[in-house]
Formats: sequence, structure tokens, C-alpha cells
Amino acid sequence: MFEMDSRLQQDSLVLGEFPLCRLLLSKDANYPWFILVPKREGVSELFDMSQEDQAQLWKETTGLAEALKGEFAADKMNVATLGNVVSQMHMHVIVRRHGDAAWPAPVWGRVPAVEYGPGQVDAIRQRLRALSLADYQEA
Amino acid sequence: MFEMDSRLQQDSLVLGEFPLCRLLLSKDANYPWFILVPKREGVSELFDMSQEDQAQLWKETTGLAEALKGEFAADKMNVATLGNVVSQMHMHVIVRRHGDAAWPAPVWGRVPAVEYGPGQVDAIRQRLRALSLADYQEA
Repeated sequence: MFEMDSRLQQDSLVLGEFPLCRLLLSKDANYPWFILVPKREGVSELFDMSQEDQAQLWKETTGLAEALKGEFAADKMNVATLGNVVSQMHMHVIVRRHGDAAWPAPVWGRVPAVEYGPGQVDAIRQRLRALSLADYQEA
Repeated sequence: MFEMDSRLQQDSLVLGEFPLCRLLLSKDANYPWFILVPKREGVSELFDMSQEDQAQLWKETTGLAEALKGEFAADKMNVATLGNVVSQMHMHVIVRRHGDAAWPAPVWGRVPAVEYGPGQVDAIRQRLRALSLADYQEA
């Protein structure tokens, strides 16, 4: 049975679902920071997944990254699975821009998170909707 | 024509070649820190690559990560493509252990790099050789 890690739940909002992954938004308005969590039990490393799931994770990750790059005018997409703190497999897909709060450093632990203001998360949901991401279901 | 970014050349050593990627070792003895660089021109984002190259990159990345996890007794593998400083596509595959110099933070910019001592890089080359990685050619 798939259950989200409590730390992931606390630090993010659920945006919707792909066939394999739940799509989260990190509660940090410094960057458009998305997280894909495969809805599988007991997966920590990429190679813990079946070949089929791996291919699907790659598809969801690169498809999302490409769509976000255009929509959010990224200078660079950061794609990473670390898992040193939360061992449940999750893939970060982060829009980076010249001059963002951590640029050019990685985002983790760099500057304190900034809360989203009223309406900002809804605006992100709407931008995702407009992208018509393949096989994506809004929550 | 494929040419390695000068910063990558400066900060790493060439270990060998996979069909798609050159395998590098980061000049930082704090962690067994490997980097895969697709031998393609003008690639910055994952989705800049052909579907075939993407599948091969995933294969080389996950195969390497799995082999390293066992050989180097990793507590967690960190797999990431950031590219904020060096825009040429490169995939970090880093062995992380509880109590390493940056644990549990990501490695980038955390602590100063430590130089490898005499023989240490050769020892790593030998450990890779012993792993008999699929389609890997030592440099």
C-alpha cells in the first residue's frame, strides 16, 4: 500500500496525479519546485523499481521538466533524486532562474522557505491545467 | 563534435567510457562522486536528447548507481542533473554515507573539496574494473 512519507506531506501540497507518480508542490515560493512521488511501496532507490516503472518515471519526469521550462521561463531545470532525509523515492523537478534566491547553488538548505501567498498556488494549478500534461489528473 | 566543458575537465578525472557517456570522477575525496557526460554536442537539458539517448542515459545512470551502491556500501545514492554552473548535460551519481562530510545535506558547495592522495584514484579504478560494468571501457 502506497503511503506518503510524513515529512513530504508536511513540506508540500498535492497538485495531482500521473499514472505512476503523485505530483507535489514544495511549500517554498522561492522557486517553482515540483516533486514526483512514485505511488509504490518500499521504493528508495531508482533501481528498486521495475524496469517498466523506471521508464514511466523517466517519461513523467522529462515530460514535466520540458513543459515547466517553457511555461515558467526557466533558465535551467534541476532534476534530482537525493533522499538523504526522506528515503521514500521522490524526484525533484525545479525551475531555476538566473537571480533566484539560491542561484546558481542547488536549492536545498540554501535560504529559508518563503510561504505562498493567497491565490499563488491556485495560479500554479491553473498554469499546469493550461499545459494539458499527458495523462495528468488534477487533484 | 563532442567537447567537454572546461570546468568539468578541471574539476574531474576521466575514468572511462560507456556507449553514450564519458565517466568522470570528481576531484573530491570526501565522497565517491561520479559524473556521466553524454558524448553529444549542444545538450543541456534531459529533453534536449533523442528518446534513444535518453533511454541509454537512464540505463547507464541506474546501472552505475546500483553497482556503486553495493561496492561502496552507500546508505543512499544521490542522482542529479543540475547544470546551473556548467550547462553541458552531466549527471551526478554520488555515493552518500551516514556521517560523510555533508550528510544529510546535498554535496554541492557544502564543504571544501579534499584532494585524493596517491593511489586512491587507482584504487577506485580497480574497484570499478572488478564490477565489470556492462559496456564500460576503462580509459
